[in-house]
Amino acid sequence: MSRAAVSSKGDRTRDRILDAAATVASIGGVSAVTIGPLAESLGMSKSGLFAHFRSKEALQVETLDRSAEHFIEAVIEPVRAEPDKSKRLEIFFKLWLDWIENPGRLGGGCPILSAGIEYDDVPGPVRDASARHTGALNDSIRRMVRNARPGCDVETIAALVDGLALSHLVRVRLLREPNARSVTERAFALLLENSRKD
Amino acid sequence: MSRAAVSSKGDRTRDRILDAAATVASIGGVSAVTIGPLAESLGMSKSGLFAHFRSKEALQVETLDRSAEHFIEAVIEPVRAEPDKSKRLEIFFKLWLDWIENPGRLGGGCPILSAGIEYDDVPGPVRDASARHTGALNDSIRRMVRNARPGCDVETIAALVDGLALSHLVRVRLLREPNARSVTERAFALLLENSRKD
Repeated sequence: MSRAAVSSKGDRTRDRILDAAATVASIGGVSAVTIGPLAESLGMSKSGLFAHFRSKEALQVETLDRSAEHFIEAVIEPVRAEPDKSKRLEIFFKLWLDWIENPGRLGGGCPILSAGIEYDDVPGPVRDASARHTGALNDSIRRMVRNARPGCDVETIAALVDGLALSHLVRVRLLREPNARSVTERAFALLLENSRKD
Repeated sequence: MSRAAVSSKGDRTRDRILDAAATVASIGGVSAVTIGPLAESLGMSKSGLFAHFRSKEALQVETLDRSAEHFIEAVIEPVRAEPDKSKRLEIFFKLWLDWIENPGRLGGGCPILSAGIEYDDVPGPVRDASARHTGALNDSIRRMVRNARPGCDVETIAALVDGLALSHLVRVRLLREPNARSVTERAFALLLENSRKD
């Protein structure tokens, strides 16, 4: 077998592991991603899985990176396809709500969001990775707010937009409130209406 | 020893266990509250701890209940002491931000909030307990919004207030943004200003 073919087989195995790990993280949080049970669910040996990820933390960090790739594909790429930057915030927010209600094919909630809450007081690489992804998302939101409402108090509106999505997550996924989406959409419209100028 | 004295000693042990468990949950999430390690940290036997809590889930549910008691003492009771109900929302929000930044003597984040995110896709008593506490808090927020701004779109403003606190949590505890509190306070003022009528 050529070197490329070997590497490609290794990559496919890695992919398969990370997809399974992202599903586990989506349902039970990234702390539920551990080498033994994951190897068992994939019909692999623990040492086989260790050959790809040298520690539980490395596996958990790459699980978050894989989840971020899913998020970018489902939410960020369609937003970037809109050439009028002033329209991107509204497109983004709708797709973000869709993602929160049903993140890709992951089966549960957003692994990065829950990792941010679960690991905020646990120093280490998992906390760092979730802070990196969350910080990047918040930067994007601020850019979109600035383009949608030039001259507004960007930090303030961005915090309200971000928070509204978090509240939506709780009202949909934990409390299962049937009117969650319509309340969130009314709140978003109110924000846009009241942020026309500083 | 009298029956009352026996019961009181048992109560004190229970209290000690639940206080330690609430601290563990505050730092690592309620999933980190497990009987073996908790017994060890308290210098108790596993069977001694089992005598008080018959399962890990029962212990985790009572840990959330204990955390809610701390929250009520730190945030809700001072709010209720204000006789003018129209002023309660502002008092509540300030105390809630204080709680999010430093919840009682727990040492980490709010255990109920993180349990809601961690267990939203995990059916069972822990999910039920965190939905019960979170739902009760959201009901209180709606009541306070109604009293502060009669005639406003209560559900919408309550979702924005609730979300703003969640966003504050992420910006303070995960991202450690130095301007988090001032951004959150400006956002809250904007909400109050724009919710004077429906």
